[in-house]
Amino acid sequence: MFNIVLHCPEIPGNTGSIGRTCVALGIPLILIRPYGFEITEKSVRRAGLDYWKHLKLIEYDSWNQFINLEKITNNSKLFFFENQANCTYFEAKFTNGAYLIFGGETKGIPDNLTTQYSEHIYKLPMNSPHIRSLNLSNVVTAAAYECLRQTSLLS
Amino acid sequence: MFNIVLHCPEIPGNTGSIGRTCVALGIPLILIRPYGFEITEKSVRRAGLDYWKHLKLIEYDSWNQFINLEKITNNSKLFFFENQANCTYFEAKFTNGAYLIFGGETKGIPDNLTTQYSEHIYKLPMNSPHIRSLNLSNVVTAAAYECLRQTSLLS
Repeated sequence: MFNIVLHCPEIPGNTGSIGRTCVALGIPLILIRPYGFEITEKSVRRAGLDYWKHLKLIEYDSWNQFINLEKITNNSKLFFFENQANCTYFEAKFTNGAYLIFGGETKGIPDNLTTQYSEHIYKLPMNSPHIRSLNLSNVVTAAAYECLRQTSLLS
Repeated sequence: MFNIVLHCPEIPGNTGSIGRTCVALGIPLILIRPYGFEITEKSVRRAGLDYWKHLKLIEYDSWNQFINLEKITNNSKLFFFENQANCTYFEAKFTNGAYLIFGGETKGIPDNLTTQYSEHIYKLPMNSPHIRSLNLSNVVTAAAYECLRQTSLLS
């Protein structure tokens, strides 16, 4: 179907909660190192409850390793999520095999990637000047379900 | 626009995180008592970070008080979310002024309400036998953004 990618996640509870969403959807969770925590840390599993063992977890050491080993030659399958973007994710055209990519909670997507993939960056629209970001696991779940909705319509 | 309603929420961190989503979207959060925590408890505010003070929070003592004081005479504005439902929320027809209603984390929506409003119950689709539910704040955020998407298309 499609894939969730966390680039250098920092907060174990979010990664655990995102793992739970991935299990529910039957999709893989791809993590790109370094993380801000040990993947064996109890808190990842705690947030994922006892679902973590059912997760299809894939880990890469770097962005380049991710691109090479996933054999990504078509950038149109890459969808980056950032707080600031010109397009909302409602405007994205998700396809089967898409990679939905999220940066670390405080660091976001690195500048070199947002520059290289500037045509592939999307945001969740927000209507308030009081808030700069949503909780990462909330963002991932909303994005994943919109991708599911769109790709279900395709099939 | 629309409203998020938590019926007897149990976990303060989820309510805090949902408050953050509501602030981001510029929509009210309606809580129906009793809660499984004190609303003044630090953990609600912690999960909502410093956004909690910007939240339009409305509290009711009971379901009936909610219905009466919100002057709800048209059930078509009510959208209940449960793990088990015949329809997915992609099939819901959200309109401006909708109430998106979520039960407590372990108790869900009470049976008397699911019976009374059986035509208004929706689920997030899940593809795994290994998981029975998603994190509540993740569910609320995905539902709220689908409602935003649909109501934006209406205007």
